[in-house]
Amino acid sequence: MVGGGPGAFIGAVHRMAAALDGSYELVAGAFSSDVSKSRQTGEELALDPGRVYETFRDMASAEASRDDGIDVAVIVTPNHLHYPAARAFLEAGIHVICDKPLVTTTDDADALCALASQRGLVFAVTYNYTGYPMVKEARDRIRAGELGELRKVVVEYSQGWLRTLLEAEGQKQAEWRGDPNRAGLSSALGDIGTHAYNLLHYVTGLEARRLFADLGTVVEGRAMEDDATVLLDLDGDVRGVMIVSQIATGERNHLRLRVYGSEKALDWCQEDPNRLRILAPDGAETVLFRGGEVGGAADAATRLPGGHPEGFIEAFANIYRGAAEAIRRNSSTFGGCSDPGEGDPRAVDFPTVEDGMLGVYFVHRAIQSSLAERWIDMNDGSAKPDTTA
Amino acid sequence: MVGGGPGAFIGAVHRMAAALDGSYELVAGAFSSDVSKSRQTGEELALDPGRVYETFRDMASAEASRDDGIDVAVIVTPNHLHYPAARAFLEAGIHVICDKPLVTTTDDADALCALASQRGLVFAVTYNYTGYPMVKEARDRIRAGELGELRKVVVEYSQGWLRTLLEAEGQKQAEWRGDPNRAGLSSALGDIGTHAYNLLHYVTGLEARRLFADLGTVVEGRAMEDDATVLLDLDGDVRGVMIVSQIATGERNHLRLRVYGSEKALDWCQEDPNRLRILAPDGAETVLFRGGEVGGAADAATRLPGGHPEGFIEAFANIYRGAAEAIRRNSSTFGGCSDPGEGDPRAVDFPTVEDGMLGVYFVHRAIQSSLAERWIDMNDGSAKPDTTA
Amino acid sequence: MVGGGPGAFIGAVHRMAAALDGSYELVAGAFSSDVSKSRQTGEELALDPGRVYETFRDMASAEASRDDGIDVAVIVTPNHLHYPAARAFLEAGIHVICDKPLVTTTDDADALCALASQRGLVFAVTYNYTGYPMVKEARDRIRAGELGELRKVVVEYSQGWLRTLLEAEGQKQAEWRGDPNRAGLSSALGDIGTHAYNLLHYVTGLEARRLFADLGTVVEGRAMEDDATVLLDLDGDVRGVMIVSQIATGERNHLRLRVYGSEKALDWCQEDPNRLRILAPDGAETVLFRGGEVGGAADAATRLPGGHPEGFIEAFANIYRGAAEAIRRNSSTFGGCSDPGEGDPRAVDFPTVEDGMLGVYFVHRAIQSSLAERWIDMNDGSAKPDTTA
Amino acid sequence: MVGGGPGAFIGAVHRMAAALDGSYELVAGAFSSDVSKSRQTGEELALDPGRVYETFRDMASAEASRDDGIDVAVIVTPNHLHYPAARAFLEAGIHVICDKPLVTTTDDADALCALASQRGLVFAVTYNYTGYPMVKEARDRIRAGELGELRKVVVEYSQGWLRTLLEAEGQKQAEWRGDPNRAGLSSALGDIGTHAYNLLHYVTGLEARRLFADLGTVVEGRAMEDDATVLLDLDGDVRGVMIVSQIATGERNHLRLRVYGSEKALDWCQEDPNRLRILAPDGAETVLFRGGEVGGAADAATRLPGGHPEGFIEAFANIYRGAAEAIRRNSSTFGGCSDPGEGDPRAVDFPTVEDGMLGVYFVHRAIQSSLAERWIDMNDGSAKPDTTA
Repeated sequence: MVGGGPGAFIGAVHRMAAALDGSYELVAGAFSSDVSKSRQTGEELALDPGRVYETFRDMASAEASRDDGIDVAVIVTPNHLHYPAARAFLEAGIHVICDKPLVTTTDDADALCALASQRGLVFAVTYNYTGYPMVKEARDRIRAGELGELRKVVVEYSQGWLRTLLEAEGQKQAEWRGDPNRAGLSSALGDIGTHAYNLLHYVTGLEARRLFADLGTVVEGRAMEDDATVLLDLDGDVRGVMIVSQIATGERNHLRLRVYGSEKALDWCQEDPNRLRILAPDGAETVLFRGGEVGGAADAATRLPGGHPEGFIEAFANIYRGAAEAIRRNSSTFGGCSDPGEGDPRAVDFPTVEDGMLGVYFVHRAIQSSLAERWIDMNDGSAKPDTTA
Repeated sequence: MVGGGPGAFIGAVHRMAAALDGSYELVAGAFSSDVSKSRQTGEELALDPGRVYETFRDMASAEASRDDGIDVAVIVTPNHLHYPAARAFLEAGIHVICDKPLVTTTDDADALCALASQRGLVFAVTYNYTGYPMVKEARDRIRAGELGELRKVVVEYSQGWLRTLLEAEGQKQAEWRGDPNRAGLSSALGDIGTHAYNLLHYVTGLEARRLFADLGTVVEGRAMEDDATVLLDLDGDVRGVMIVSQIATGERNHLRLRVYGSEKALDWCQEDPNRLRILAPDGAETVLFRGGEVGGAADAATRLPGGHPEGFIEAFANIYRGAAEAIRRNSSTFGGCSDPGEGDPRAVDFPTVEDGMLGVYFVHRAIQSSLAERWIDMNDGSAKPDTTA
Repeated sequence: MVGGGPGAFIGAVHRMAAALDGSYELVAGAFSSDVSKSRQTGEELALDPGRVYETFRDMASAEASRDDGIDVAVIVTPNHLHYPAARAFLEAGIHVICDKPLVTTTDDADALCALASQRGLVFAVTYNYTGYPMVKEARDRIRAGELGELRKVVVEYSQGWLRTLLEAEGQKQAEWRGDPNRAGLSSALGDIGTHAYNLLHYVTGLEARRLFADLGTVVEGRAMEDDATVLLDLDGDVRGVMIVSQIATGERNHLRLRVYGSEKALDWCQEDPNRLRILAPDGAETVLFRGGEVGGAADAATRLPGGHPEGFIEAFANIYRGAAEAIRRNSSTFGGCSDPGEGDPRAVDFPTVEDGMLGVYFVHRAIQSSLAERWIDMNDGSAKPDTTA
Repeated sequence: MVGGGPGAFIGAVHRMAAALDGSYELVAGAFSSDVSKSRQTGEELALDPGRVYETFRDMASAEASRDDGIDVAVIVTPNHLHYPAARAFLEAGIHVICDKPLVTTTDDADALCALASQRGLVFAVTYNYTGYPMVKEARDRIRAGELGELRKVVVEYSQGWLRTLLEAEGQKQAEWRGDPNRAGLSSALGDIGTHAYNLLHYVTGLEARRLFADLGTVVEGRAMEDDATVLLDLDGDVRGVMIVSQIATGERNHLRLRVYGSEKALDWCQEDPNRLRILAPDGAETVLFRGGEVGGAADAATRLPGGHPEGFIEAFANIYRGAAEAIRRNSSTFGGCSDPGEGDPRAVDFPTVEDGMLGVYFVHRAIQSSLAERWIDMNDGSAKPDTTA
């Protein structure tokens, strides 16, 4: 594990997600840029001190040369380190599980995608919300045509934790996320808008052709946007709206997706993840529950019977489970950017480096659009914000 | 009553709303452009046949010349007749209660507003959703500063009833609403977007300075837009998003308003109108119930104790009750566009011709913006869509 | 109208319910035992002072002898006056609409039932909750066999308004309801338990064969029970549980019915009356909405399209509408205790004096059981509590 | 681990719960009475084959004699084996974590309680629902007096999975639970009623003094009760109602607790476990969320920030975490039946053998009451059903 030292939130989540199904063992780490903190975390986790490294580069080379070296590196650092760390492990022939957003520039995204593909290595990006069983059920019902022709998508990710200038108060999470040098060009879109975009893409299979974005910085003194609305012109003339906020006071972690088709609609909300609402034209609603009547991919991603709630960690663990299975199936014939190889594809149903790349492009086009106050084509790289930063 | 003949939906609602509190008696009408239908409705309502008129002009002049002539005319025709009918009654010195949208051009809106003011007549526009007690409670809490500085408003009005080309199947409601000659330039925005804008304005006190709109026609063969997203730049740098749809399959009448302030947020939904959700920064929610702990305007607009649900008709009746009180207080010193005169202002808390006018401007600027694909100032009348129609 | 003077709650509800559909006109009354209060109410309602009476007996005889005398008397007094008032009007040949509980002894219940039947008069009892459209839908689905064989019923009616000794503080509603001389032998069961029992009976068609009741007086100083649980052994071995409380702090008017069958279950809650939940064995839920996909009796009891909430007054008005239709159909051939005569029976779908009688028996058997601490047969009249009072 | 072989549900849950926080390592087992199945499970879990035992007795003696023997035995067999297995490990000086219900007779319950206390060993019983953070919050708010004087408790545990005679169809879970020789005298009360009783006891601190129970067997051919209602006379004159069902078609795992006090009430539901509803007398509701504004024990039992749902496994893992901490604090001075020793008592907040014993008594008194059709004192052991079985 790279990152995830004292004070980190997501590192502990990754460790619990990895432990849940017994497929992973944590044996090495470079947990912090501060080596004493790194050692402290290593001790707390009862690691061999010889496998607690000063830098991810040391870790990549040392582990690559061990017979019992790690199979996979987990990267949970602030965003700006994702690129060099992922590169180092890929080049050392080690599979990668990386937090999102993948990287901070579209060039880096392209590069990682190419590298993973070329080396034939598994590269999972923890867009963890697509690990929820009822998200898989939503996707499968759309694929099966239950909604008819898709027409409109509304996706919202609202949080309220940045309603004050928290980054100025020394809160570690807010601090690096609010610093363009560590988080990248975007705060709200990068941190949570990419989740929303990935969720939309995963469930509907659609990508944006054009977008119109309006980014705003509501809290005075903040360096990046903390609120955004993005209009999406999706494949097949599907109309999309994305609402993203970090200053929506009182909202906790309100990620919600609605998809309207010509025949039916569906509605899923991350804060109530065990349910999926299906709306019929006559106004009746059907609420489906994980562990109950649903099947296929949703069942495969489920550990408990209906009425026994599963949550965030279980969804996260599904990403880990999928990556483990992909690695097991022979990494040499399966790359993160390519097809899942043989066997039940559901078992390797997890977001890859390509999904990470799409998120990076999405953020950059949105920034372009907001600056220009006009619709931008997704393949319009003119005045790329990342090359001018 | 003008309009509201056989097959009309809203006419019956107006009649029930007027009856509920015993302040109105229906004595005259011109219910349909088809005089035999008009007479049929008159009979069903047990009216004096001598007061069932062929046209609203006949009705205005005849009733104005009777000693026991009507005090107030209710206009529930298709949109394109609102203007001439309202004008006729105002000129005859008769108060007006008119359905929304007020009229179909900004010029007509200005003219009616001026006329009502000049004659000192009451002119209510039945933006009925602001008649709900918990909407009044929301407004009063914002006025009292409970939310802190306002920051973001999300308003949505989604319906699914036009997911097919219903207007081609002879459905009376869909037919005239889908005909630009009768409905005006807009379908979704005119019919329901104006409600959403009025609700936003009523609760927050804010108006839009600029807007960016994206109107779409999803169902093939439809003459006007059936889906729209509007970004709003509101007074005081408050960010606004409006989502409007008539093709959101499975949605019934989903009007929802969320207002985020620096201290708290609130959330109200028309399909669950007896509740108002208040969100606190720490993530706790308080749900307030009509008839319970709330006071002031909400209480004054309430007929039943907590736990005894009130609905659409009761909210509608509150508009009627307010207009009745305004008429009672002496119409000569109180015009729809001016101040409420003496006494408890809550009793005359209802939308006026000015609110109607704001809605007409909103629709026209949104159409301009969508055509131009750019932000439009609200006072930018260049290329007014209504003058070019 | 008898009763419903100043300070009364339910009188105003009856008046709004009667006004809503235009079938009733209020022309006479004996609104209070205090004649000056009665006159005050008469003036407020703009009645002919000559038709405001000192007593219901005066009213019955005077109105019966007028050519334009009332068709129907509405009785909304405290419970102990229901019997003599209803008797007086029935004997004068006038139809009756009476609030619940019908009367305070089983003998009086039997007597009124016999009298209404013998005179062939309409006698409605305002168990208003069965007026809700989705309650009718629930009944119709059970009748159609959708739930399979019925197995278990859970009905709950919880309120919190009597969590303090409100009757000692001069609150008018609490005062008479808490006085055995005016309310009868029971408080919680009589006031709200009868509603719960009627709802259960209406929806399932079942009656109790035996019951075990546990009545309790939680608030010190109270004369009657304010909390009760009743186990019901229903027809066909269906198991029933009723929970009733007036001291359930924070509950407003929480009347909820669940019916479990061998194939499906249903769930309806009065505080959310426009929805009906259907539960399937696999754990999926379908939520049906009034005004939407439902038909038959629910549609006939509906005034607005889906998404436009209806509430308590509309449900109440459905009782009035049904009674009006029954009176119209010729009272001489239709008695409250007999069959609905010709025409669409849905139009005369309202609770009658027989339903009122069942409620009175239910209360008395529950009191017997609680005193004896044992199961009691419904037809076991030994030690009738009402004859010993 | 004893039990938890192929086809078992709860064994896998125990393993995930133990793994989540990294405090446990599974090293030995007797997973099935069929030794080949036991070996198969051992292989799947990659255990040393030498530590996969034929019987729990072998396991207890062999592990007790190893230097690196197990610290704690997890017992997840059918109910009838809980007693001998727990006894074997306690006598071998090994701590125990046992599934519920503890045992099938009150004598065995007393015996285990005495034995654990005498040996000073930790004995956790996995009443897992009390591991939920918001259950702890509920308890702490009651302890702090927020609800005022407690008055009424309604607890319900409804499931629908046994609506058919599943035990006759070879479903493994239904089979042993429906067999009195393996499950004990009771099905619904033993399997889920004990959870409900423990939840009530944990949150309110109250025990029943008397109870009246009505047990029923709804599905023909079933050997034990599948539905029950129990009236509880709780300490301090608090009135209690428990509704339990395994034939409530469509219910998944509906465990819900409501507690009404003189000042406020609270409401928690296992299928929505991250929320806790607080009801105020004026009808307002406050919804508290795990990970948000709550503190103390709820926070200590939480792994994620607000808006990131936790579920069943996390609650289960809290029992494991507490037991691990208790074992760590020196088993020689802390027995399951005694006080938690030094340090933060929250860390060892888990159900013990005493809680298990209370559940066994509750079930037996309920059976007595139902047979006798009368109220039974909790300390009335006459005609103990377990001695006559």
